[in-house]
Amino acid sequence: MSQTDTDFTPTARTRVKRSHQRGHYDRETVYGILDAGLMCHVGYVIEGQPYVTPTAYWREGDKVYWHGSSASKMLRHLENGPRVCFTVALMDGLVLARSGFHTSVNYRSVIAMGVAEVIGGEAEKRASLEAMMERIVPGRWATLRPVTKQEIKATTVVSLKLEEVVAKVRSGPAIDDAEDMDLDVWAGVVPTATLVGVPEDNPDLKAGVTRPPNLAKIRIG
Amino acid sequence: MSQTDTDFTPTARTRVKRSHQRGHYDRETVYGILDAGLMCHVGYVIEGQPYVTPTAYWREGDKVYWHGSSASKMLRHLENGPRVCFTVALMDGLVLARSGFHTSVNYRSVIAMGVAEVIGGEAEKRASLEAMMERIVPGRWATLRPVTKQEIKATTVVSLKLEEVVAKVRSGPAIDDAEDMDLDVWAGVVPTATLVGVPEDNPDLKAGVTRPPNLAKIRIG
Repeated sequence: MSQTDTDFTPTARTRVKRSHQRGHYDRETVYGILDAGLMCHVGYVIEGQPYVTPTAYWREGDKVYWHGSSASKMLRHLENGPRVCFTVALMDGLVLARSGFHTSVNYRSVIAMGVAEVIGGEAEKRASLEAMMERIVPGRWATLRPVTKQEIKATTVVSLKLEEVVAKVRSGPAIDDAEDMDLDVWAGVVPTATLVGVPEDNPDLKAGVTRPPNLAKIRIG
Repeated sequence: MSQTDTDFTPTARTRVKRSHQRGHYDRETVYGILDAGLMCHVGYVIEGQPYVTPTAYWREGDKVYWHGSSASKMLRHLENGPRVCFTVALMDGLVLARSGFHTSVNYRSVIAMGVAEVIGGEAEKRASLEAMMERIVPGRWATLRPVTKQEIKATTVVSLKLEEVVAKVRSGPAIDDAEDMDLDVWAGVVPTATLVGVPEDNPDLKAGVTRPPNLAKIRIG
């Protein structure tokens, strides 16, 4: 059985104890959430202070990637090989119950823990950045001014192998106490989603350049 | 000058060094972002492993609050008074430049660091939970089955005073290199926002109960 067919193994850190039915360890669920999201939050510790940095990410195979300026405090710190926590959370709706206590949020989240690896080679960095753009706007990379050696050098790309991982999902309607079902209180779900709006041309757009059709392929959430 | 009129003071941890024009320390900017968001990511460290937990939050005055089950690993850990990082990030758009290097994301974020305080008294917890519901659906709390003593006891509420805080904002069009301006590449911004959809009635809704008009007041982002 190849690794991509194997469920993740819960650890003391990733096993969901309360509401355990919300925990998922199969790759289909984890990869599905990761491939829907665009922004992650990376947790790391410098001199005892936790930091949580939001940044864009993408997945390739059994790794997630993120990148930034080589001068970034986070990315310089990750070169030391510290443990990180990588979290993606997609909010799907407000769950409005008949009591405050059972009011909740529908969401899909992935939490992955481990040590991030800095991508070394220029070719590998270049390929990763292309993969990121393909995630955001399929087909756009080939239309852009090619990335330069200096730009590659000024960019740090890191990856985190997905090993210690848990997905958590809450979906469906409000679940109220039996004794509250006869109350005259509305209950239900107000769905939320990421809206991708109408593209806005740059004010300095060259005359005659029109919006490429691949903008319509952008999907987030 | 009251504290609410005072800017936050940058520290070595919160001073924005690169792209320093994106950093903001005034309360109007910080509070504006906090009052628009609904989900935060809380960072904390247990036995050397950073954790990043997504959860709902709300702001009252110069404090942010979040809550959960008293059995939650995060909330039990916060009773020890460790340092935390509280991050809110709202994605406003994809910034598609003429080169991969200048491709970016428009966003508003707040990062706050400090030690969270556990709210002790039943009345104070109750008032905080009401404030949370008022943030989500103004006017709904008074219509709900009142929260019980047992539910209050089963809920932990924590607050973080906003002291070491930075907001970061990127807005506006793509900014390309001067030598790329004549390329036949489309550049612009694809706006993103949180879509609040049409409320869905719970399948077990009592006959005759209709959607309250305050559902239309829900604003996120």
